[in-house]
Amino acid sequence: MALIVQKYGGSSVGTIDRIRNVARRLIDTQKAGNRVVAVISAMSGITDKLIGLAHQVMDNPPERELDVLLATGEQQSIALLCMAITDMGFKARSFTGGQAGICTYGSHTRGRIDTIDAAQVIRALDEGCICVCAGFQGVAQDGSIHTLGRGGSDLSAIAMAAAVKADICQIYTDVDGVYTCDPRVVKDARKIPVLSYEEMLEMASSGSKVMQGRSVEFAKKFSVVFEVRNSMNNNPGTIVQEENSSMESLAVRGVSIERNQARVTVSGITAPVAYTSLILNALAEAEINIDMIVANTAHDGMARQSFTMNMNDLGKAQAALKKLLPKLGKGARLETESGLAKLSVVGVGMRSNVGVAATVFGALAEAGIATGMIATSEIRISTTVDAGDIEQAARVVHAAFHLDRA
Amino acid sequence: MALIVQKYGGSSVGTIDRIRNVARRLIDTQKAGNRVVAVISAMSGITDKLIGLAHQVMDNPPERELDVLLATGEQQSIALLCMAITDMGFKARSFTGGQAGICTYGSHTRGRIDTIDAAQVIRALDEGCICVCAGFQGVAQDGSIHTLGRGGSDLSAIAMAAAVKADICQIYTDVDGVYTCDPRVVKDARKIPVLSYEEMLEMASSGSKVMQGRSVEFAKKFSVVFEVRNSMNNNPGTIVQEENSSMESLAVRGVSIERNQARVTVSGITAPVAYTSLILNALAEAEINIDMIVANTAHDGMARQSFTMNMNDLGKAQAALKKLLPKLGKGARLETESGLAKLSVVGVGMRSNVGVAATVFGALAEAGIATGMIATSEIRISTTVDAGDIEQAARVVHAAFHLDRA
Repeated sequence: MALIVQKYGGSSVGTIDRIRNVARRLIDTQKAGNRVVAVISAMSGITDKLIGLAHQVMDNPPERELDVLLATGEQQSIALLCMAITDMGFKARSFTGGQAGICTYGSHTRGRIDTIDAAQVIRALDEGCICVCAGFQGVAQDGSIHTLGRGGSDLSAIAMAAAVKADICQIYTDVDGVYTCDPRVVKDARKIPVLSYEEMLEMASSGSKVMQGRSVEFAKKFSVVFEVRNSMNNNPGTIVQEENSSMESLAVRGVSIERNQARVTVSGITAPVAYTSLILNALAEAEINIDMIVANTAHDGMARQSFTMNMNDLGKAQAALKKLLPKLGKGARLETESGLAKLSVVGVGMRSNVGVAATVFGALAEAGIATGMIATSEIRISTTVDAGDIEQAARVVHAAFHLDRA
Repeated sequence: MALIVQKYGGSSVGTIDRIRNVARRLIDTQKAGNRVVAVISAMSGITDKLIGLAHQVMDNPPERELDVLLATGEQQSIALLCMAITDMGFKARSFTGGQAGICTYGSHTRGRIDTIDAAQVIRALDEGCICVCAGFQGVAQDGSIHTLGRGGSDLSAIAMAAAVKADICQIYTDVDGVYTCDPRVVKDARKIPVLSYEEMLEMASSGSKVMQGRSVEFAKKFSVVFEVRNSMNNNPGTIVQEENSSMESLAVRGVSIERNQARVTVSGITAPVAYTSLILNALAEAEINIDMIVANTAHDGMARQSFTMNMNDLGKAQAALKKLLPKLGKGARLETESGLAKLSVVGVGMRSNVGVAATVFGALAEAGIATGMIATSEIRISTTVDAGDIEQAARVVHAAFHLDRA
């Protein structure tokens, strides 16, 4: 008898019929001899509707009250799902974030999970209930409601799995798992059966939309084994767990792509060495997430720095850096390039397999694709290419590492 | 500096514009130098919409989960109202039933208020906040959510007023107060400035729709002075408080009417004396609220009993009593009459003013209106009339007691 936490997102519970589908899946899991905890999101569209209502009242609603408002979305879906389970003749009990014992800290609309006291959930499991918990929310020490920000329901599920000591946490989405590359781009992309936390993290941060990095980090921290699965079928998904030696046999596990990238380059810098922190602070104050950073000193002794970021942030970045130019040097200039994309190859096997970079850039060169900025981590190599080249780039690199074969 | 609790119902917060209107009223009350607690309902229509969703899932949803679902209605309106107050530049803090410290017992969907720990609300008042509490809901000792049933938000407001020791609890509705009679029926009906709890209770139980009896009882028990007011203007309303000697000067304070009444008579009863409890138990088991009871023994030694009830319950009552007839006597018969209405006159002055009944029945007789069953309490006289006669009956009785004059 295993204890399984299953997480279903907003589209999986988006209609009454879909709620019934989830109820059936939970019941099947219990009938197979397991203890079952569900963590679910609000019905798709509800959260946006509530935000719309708030904005009818004012432009910048106080975040404390926005949390009170938004938390009702999950509170509705847990009640409806419990009704559906009851209607099918099985025992269910709903738990808001607070009732599930999810204690948070930090700020409203982006609370962080502190501890989980799962005693009530475990008691309900002991009584034979399927427990249905509201994702995305918790309660701070002062009793006020926190929501957990984007991807918060995944985080709730992973944290709940840690608290109840679940054997596995299944994250249900609308895809069968994590693929060697986006199947819409690379037709022969394969589902990856097992990934390490590190690989999942690198894929999340390099464009794979399956799961947010902080949920993966939480799982890694508490050694929660999780599996990304499709809520519309029963196919096995991608299991994410601690790295083991067998994972190193493959040099590369997957190819991620990220579109809508832009590059900003500041050149002609003659200011003293502190200029990097001047630039990074200016971008941070403008709330711009930068991705790749390349810095070097040119032959004439003047420094230049380049950054990539989402295209949508380009205007803000230009405005923030323009003000800074006079401090960076007399001849300091700003240069921007939009219409870029980023290609990344990820794999823990990179550590022990030589020549991965050579294979990547060889394949791109052979296809006549020019590369721009390059950045690497221990288990990832990323490069920018022209947006128009990204799909072909993904295909040739995917093929170069034979990722279409098991 | 007074402490004022204001309660606004669903139609008063039914749109964003109306929510803004309530925000303005609360702010005006605070600006006038008062500490302000609001207790509000869900936006009108939301509760019905949520019940509709539940019934899409199943016919008889489990009440625990129905409460979880319904409680989101008020949770949304408190958040939106706090946003509106903030938008106008004032401090506000929302409280769900649980956060407001409203502890309940009893059953789901009709929880009863046990205690209120208003410490958090008082702390927020001390910080200068307008406190906005969700009506209609509380939390049971085991942490589960209770709703309080029909009229629950009035009850929340009265109870909160008792807990924070408010100087007054203002119940805002869509009428200016309690009238000497329904102004749609009696054109020269006047607003009653002051009523005793007992008079308000009798008027509530005899058709006045302004407030449910159990909220009035709660106010009486904890000596909460409350005022029924109109949320769309600033007119003084009807204050309800402890009886005082000046109230006895008027024999009659108001005339209530209740339509859609039916009468059931069981005659030919020869069973021993326990028959009354047999009949009442049968009606109670069928969940029928009976109103007037008249019992007597006819000249032939056979007993007969008559009851009035809402017309909608007539079918159920017939079915329940039919099964019982054989136990009541060989010749026991059931006789029913629909299409009735009830007229009641109410006033604590009845105790010391003689001739009230004579005036009522004299006025009706003069107008040629036949009366049916009659029931009395210490401060109320009620009679049934044909439904078609009720409006004229109300007018002649209202005139007979000169209720159109201050």
